[in-house]
Amino acid sequence: MTVGIVGAGQLGRMLALAGYPLGLDFLFIDRSADSPGGQVAPILCGDLAAPRLLAKLARQCDVVTFDWENVPVTALQPLVRTTRVYPPLRALAAAQDRLSEKRLFEKLAIPTTRFAPVDSLRQLQKAVAGIGLPGVLKTRRLGYDGKGQFVLRTSADIERAWTAVGAAPCLYENLVRFDHEVSVIGVRARDGEIAIYPLNCNVHRDGILRLTRAPFGAPALTRRANAALRRVLQHFNYVGVLTIEFFVQDGELIANEIAPRVHNSGHWTIEGAVTSQFENHLRAIVGLPLGSTSARGHSAMINLIGTLPAPGDALSRAGVHWHDYGKSARPGRKLGHITVVAEAAAQRDRIARALLKVVDRETWVSFR
Amino acid sequence: MTVGIVGAGQLGRMLALAGYPLGLDFLFIDRSADSPGGQVAPILCGDLAAPRLLAKLARQCDVVTFDWENVPVTALQPLVRTTRVYPPLRALAAAQDRLSEKRLFEKLAIPTTRFAPVDSLRQLQKAVAGIGLPGVLKTRRLGYDGKGQFVLRTSADIERAWTAVGAAPCLYENLVRFDHEVSVIGVRARDGEIAIYPLNCNVHRDGILRLTRAPFGAPALTRRANAALRRVLQHFNYVGVLTIEFFVQDGELIANEIAPRVHNSGHWTIEGAVTSQFENHLRAIVGLPLGSTSARGHSAMINLIGTLPAPGDALSRAGVHWHDYGKSARPGRKLGHITVVAEAAAQRDRIARALLKVVDRETWVSFR
Repeated sequence: MTVGIVGAGQLGRMLALAGYPLGLDFLFIDRSADSPGGQVAPILCGDLAAPRLLAKLARQCDVVTFDWENVPVTALQPLVRTTRVYPPLRALAAAQDRLSEKRLFEKLAIPTTRFAPVDSLRQLQKAVAGIGLPGVLKTRRLGYDGKGQFVLRTSADIERAWTAVGAAPCLYENLVRFDHEVSVIGVRARDGEIAIYPLNCNVHRDGILRLTRAPFGAPALTRRANAALRRVLQHFNYVGVLTIEFFVQDGELIANEIAPRVHNSGHWTIEGAVTSQFENHLRAIVGLPLGSTSARGHSAMINLIGTLPAPGDALSRAGVHWHDYGKSARPGRKLGHITVVAEAAAQRDRIARALLKVVDRETWVSFR
Repeated sequence: MTVGIVGAGQLGRMLALAGYPLGLDFLFIDRSADSPGGQVAPILCGDLAAPRLLAKLARQCDVVTFDWENVPVTALQPLVRTTRVYPPLRALAAAQDRLSEKRLFEKLAIPTTRFAPVDSLRQLQKAVAGIGLPGVLKTRRLGYDGKGQFVLRTSADIERAWTAVGAAPCLYENLVRFDHEVSVIGVRARDGEIAIYPLNCNVHRDGILRLTRAPFGAPALTRRANAALRRVLQHFNYVGVLTIEFFVQDGELIANEIAPRVHNSGHWTIEGAVTSQFENHLRAIVGLPLGSTSARGHSAMINLIGTLPAPGDALSRAGVHWHDYGKSARPGRKLGHITVVAEAAAQRDRIARALLKVVDRETWVSFR
C-alpha cells in the first residue's frame, strides 16, 4: 500500500520511517527533492497546491495525508472524489482559520480565550475595548511558530499592531497569563476507535516549542483535555492524529489551537510510548488497529533549533536518542530533536537540564 | 556521513531505518533494486563482489559495512586501503569458514563441539570413528539457515552424507542434544568500549530461527556468554555488532557459531532495548558513543517465514510491533517479524503463544 504525503518536512520523514516496518510505501510532494522526507522516499517536486501534481499523487497512492497544515483545502478537495484523504478536510479547514477554530471550541463547549474577528483598525479598537488588554492580534491564516502575531499591552499598541499584522483578516484575543502550556495528542481510527497519549507539558520561547515533558500527570487536567479531544475527533469523524494545545491557568484548561496532524509535542512518543504518534497516524489512515498510546517511562523532548550540535556528547548519556532531520542550518529552523527516556521523572529532568545547558541555554536558564 | 552497505537485505534495511535519525545517509550494493534495503535508500545494482562496484561504493561512502556474512573477503580487501571497513575483515574471514571458527573458539578457550575437518569420504569415516554418532557434516563455507548440513545417526549415513554435502570442504562435529539454544549479541566501538545485550533464548525449526525471547535470565550463563563474547571482540579489535550462538547442555554453554553482524535473534532490540542492535552497530562504525543495551521489559520475536499474514490481527494486541521487509513471498524466505514487548515474562509468553498459533503453528505446538 502506498501512502501519499503532501509536504516532505520532518513530520513526513518521521511518518515514512515509522511506516516502512508496516510494509507501507511512500510518495511525497514537496518543492525541494532535498527535503527531509525526500531523503527517505521518492518525491514529486513542485508546488504543494499544484492540481496536476496532486492528481498524480492521488493516482499513485492508496491514501493521501499531509505533513503541513497550511496546504490549501481547495487544492486537496478534488482528490476526495477518487482517493481516501485523511485527516478529513473539514478538520483541516477549521484548523487553518483561527476564527473557525475558536468557534469550533465554543460549539463543542471547550473553554478558550475571549476573542473577536478583526478586519479593520476600527474593529481592533472595538475588540480591545470589549476584551481588554493585554491581548494578541493574530492573522486568521498561515500562522505557525509564533509568526503573524502581535502582543498588545497598552492602547498605544493598537495602531502598531494593526500596521504590523493587520493586512490580512485577523482575530483579537485576550493574552493568557498561564502557569503551564500543555497539549493532548490523540488518534481516531476509520472504525471510530480512539486512543489518547498522556498529557504533554510544553515550554515555548519566541513562539517556538523548545521542550516537552510527558507524561505530565495531573489526572483532572488529563481527564478534561481528553474529553475535549474526543469531542473534536468525533465532531469531524476524524481519522488520524490530532493535537489540541491548551494554556493552564489556575488549574483550568484554556484551548489555544488545534493541529490536524502529528505534532512536535508528540515526538517523544517514538521512544517514550508503546506506539509512536507517527505509527498510529499511519495505522489509522490505512485501516489498521490502533497501537497502545501508553508511556514507557518518563520522556523529555528538546528541539534543536538553528544549529545542530555534534551528537556525540548527547549520545554519551544513557536513554538519549538523536533525531537529525537532514536539513541545512538556518536561524530559527527546526533541525532535529533529542529525546530522553528515563525510569523516573526526576532522572529525566536531570538529564534534560544537562542537555539544555549545552543545546539551548536560554531554555535551560528558565528550566533550572 | 554516508554509510555503504554491501547487501540490501532486511538487515541492511533495518540499519538504514535506524540510521536516518542519526543524520546518516546510506548507499547499498545488491543484485536487485527491489531488495528490502533498496526500498529505503539508493542502491548500486550488481554483484556484491564486483570490484568496480565495490570501489564506487567506497568512493561515495565514509565507512563501508555489510549485511551478508558471505561477501567474499578478497573482494572487500582492496577497500581497506582507502576506506574504513567495519567489522574487520579478519572476523568476517573467520566466520565464513566453520573450521577457522571452531579453531578460534579453541584458541580463545570457548567451549565448542568436538570437530574434525573432512575433505574426503575416508576422512569422514575417520572423523565419525573418533568423534562418534550422532554427528553433523557441514560444508565449511556458505552455510546459513541450516543449509549445507547433513545429520548422521548411524554409520549407514556416512556415504549418503558425503554424497549430499561432501563436494566442498567440510567439517564433522558431534550433534549436541541441547536443552536450549541461546545467543549473545554485543557491540564494540572504535575506542574499544563494549556493550552487551541480555541473553537471547532461541527456537529453531528446520535450521531457521522461529522464536527469540529475551532477556533469558540465567545469570551464570549470561556471565559466561559475555566473557566469551568479550574475548572474541577483543581478539579481532572488533568494531560493530557481533553475535555468538550457543547450545546449552546440562547448564553448560557450547559455542555453535559466530555472526560478524547484526543478528536475527537481536531484532527484538528495536522496541525491547534502550538502543537497538542496528543503531549500536552504526554508532560503533561511525565513531559515536554506544547506546545502552539494557532491555525494556520482556520481548519475544517471531519470524514470519514463507508467507506474510495481514498485520491487523497481530496489531490488535497491545505491545505488538510489525516488521514487513518488503519482500515477495517464497517458501522458507524470511519476510518479516513480529515483536511483542510486555512488562512481565508470563504476559509476553501468553501473547507470543497466541501469535504463534496463527502465524507459525508448528512452533506453537512445541512452545505450548
